[in-house]
Amino acid sequence: MSGDHGPQVCVPAALMLLREREDLNLILVGIPDDITACLRAQGCEGHPRLAVHPATQVVAMDEAPREALRRKKDSSLRQCIELVKAGRAAACVSAGNTGALMATAHFVLKPLPGVERPAIVSALPSAGGHTHVLDLGANAACTAQQLFQFGIMGAVVAADLGAVERPRVGLLNIGEEDIKGHETVQAAHRLFSASALHYVGFVEGDDIFTGEADVVVTDGFTGNVALKTIEGTARMIGAAMREEFSRGLGRKLMAAAARPALMALKHRLDPRRYNGASMVGLNGIVIKSHGGADQTAFAHAIRTAAREAARGVPARIVEEIARECRGGDTQRVQTGR
Amino acid sequence: MSGDHGPQVCVPAALMLLREREDLNLILVGIPDDITACLRAQGCEGHPRLAVHPATQVVAMDEAPREALRRKKDSSLRQCIELVKAGRAAACVSAGNTGALMATAHFVLKPLPGVERPAIVSALPSAGGHTHVLDLGANAACTAQQLFQFGIMGAVVAADLGAVERPRVGLLNIGEEDIKGHETVQAAHRLFSASALHYVGFVEGDDIFTGEADVVVTDGFTGNVALKTIEGTARMIGAAMREEFSRGLGRKLMAAAARPALMALKHRLDPRRYNGASMVGLNGIVIKSHGGADQTAFAHAIRTAAREAARGVPARIVEEIARECRGGDTQRVQTGR
Repeated sequence: MSGDHGPQVCVPAALMLLREREDLNLILVGIPDDITACLRAQGCEGHPRLAVHPATQVVAMDEAPREALRRKKDSSLRQCIELVKAGRAAACVSAGNTGALMATAHFVLKPLPGVERPAIVSALPSAGGHTHVLDLGANAACTAQQLFQFGIMGAVVAADLGAVERPRVGLLNIGEEDIKGHETVQAAHRLFSASALHYVGFVEGDDIFTGEADVVVTDGFTGNVALKTIEGTARMIGAAMREEFSRGLGRKLMAAAARPALMALKHRLDPRRYNGASMVGLNGIVIKSHGGADQTAFAHAIRTAAREAARGVPARIVEEIARECRGGDTQRVQTGR
Repeated sequence: MSGDHGPQVCVPAALMLLREREDLNLILVGIPDDITACLRAQGCEGHPRLAVHPATQVVAMDEAPREALRRKKDSSLRQCIELVKAGRAAACVSAGNTGALMATAHFVLKPLPGVERPAIVSALPSAGGHTHVLDLGANAACTAQQLFQFGIMGAVVAADLGAVERPRVGLLNIGEEDIKGHETVQAAHRLFSASALHYVGFVEGDDIFTGEADVVVTDGFTGNVALKTIEGTARMIGAAMREEFSRGLGRKLMAAAARPALMALKHRLDPRRYNGASMVGLNGIVIKSHGGADQTAFAHAIRTAAREAARGVPARIVEEIARECRGGDTQRVQTGR
């Protein structure tokens, strides 16, 4: 039970999912009294596919990841990841402290064989459907090899979650010509070009939305800035729209007249429909929900977790990394840069 | 005469500005026959404050900067910058090939004394007015000292163009805590903290719009990705809006009813009102207009150039760089990282 709203959001979302899908079993991890109170408030005290796993501690949203890792061994965040490690849960979904979740998941689950660095990947809306972007903030600085591995992992996620047969992978750069960008993207470009991936070359920031690629690869610094910039732009436009539609009675009537179109637009751009970022490359499935997620958004994160578990994403990543990174070609290209 | 539309846009924009401001003298640089034809089409063949400077070549929008620099010595782009160098023009405004403009300006005008790397800065709309962001793409990789200098130059531009008395400078990072980000931003953070600038610490991608800072500093890779991501997000939302307001007759009527609010929104978010990025840190004023700029947008870029010239931005940058970067304190901080 985590995030800005704790069990008040997680419990109703869990109950909604249990009604929606009969194949799902859920374990609520947290302070038992809090969970029980929430279940009671929802008029549901016992459910055959719902279990409660106790934890006595809570990791605060602003707690330093290292501190959480050291001092909060009985936190819901840690206990939830331990359930995955023990094989008692197929996936962990958390709306808690991102840094602590990443650090704890890394420490407890460990990276998959062959994976240098786990990364954070999420789907973002695009013209053609959606684009999976990674890394969204796990690694502030990355080597070419790590970027290449992000592309492999992103392609697995896009294929399994986005149902794209042969995902097109693009590498984020500041120009589409082959000579642009810094050394690391140039070296990664050579690794991708020599791989068996469906690599479409360099893409730019606006291509996240054009549907030019199913997977957009970048380092965690650039990816996180891009993500926050998207959120900021959307919020600014939303605020400007609300202001323009509430300047006096005339404008308010216009808003009322245009309500169905405005509501359809709102639904279409609703970030809750994209909630749930995967921490890929770990020996287990960990999904990070937005801290401020409401019930709809948190339920979407649980659905993502269930789909990754059903597809066996980690095992598929091990396979693909082994295929792409242990072959002689790739190694030669990397050494030659 | 440059950009996607050449004299068809530049000439009417110039004539508009001459009517608007009596203190302005403009020199149109390009192929004389093309310019004369455009002037004639506008019903204006001679103007006391308008001169034509001939050039025989044109740099193509997709030409490699190095090739343009080597082979196009009589291009309008090159000749325009030469006029600035010779002191015959106070500023150069171009809608041409960004890479060629940057490379040629760098080669002909040279960086200002003390400036390690010129950068591209532009104002972006924010809650409180606008935020100046740099570098938007001139330098794919930057040192901490270069980021620090971007902050100094950005503060001069924000003070002179944005009329902000003591601009608040923020450093783009992937978290607001002091421990986050990679080594370069951490080292730059120490330089800023020890400076006399009004430094507000780390900011995140969405803070470009919140008005937390008047200047947001980042490397040219991240800055360019952020800029393109903003454009992409705005375009996607615009397209979704047009689609939702044109689904059948009912929705079209809604759009008609809401037209004043929608037009006000469009005007408010109009990127043309922010057209004109400055290449700061050069020994001369060079303004880059968007290649696809129309008359309104190109006129705005000319206004920016006139304002920079009136304020003497380059001389102010030399002063501020000398004050901040030659003192003992700053040097000690940098060596200590």
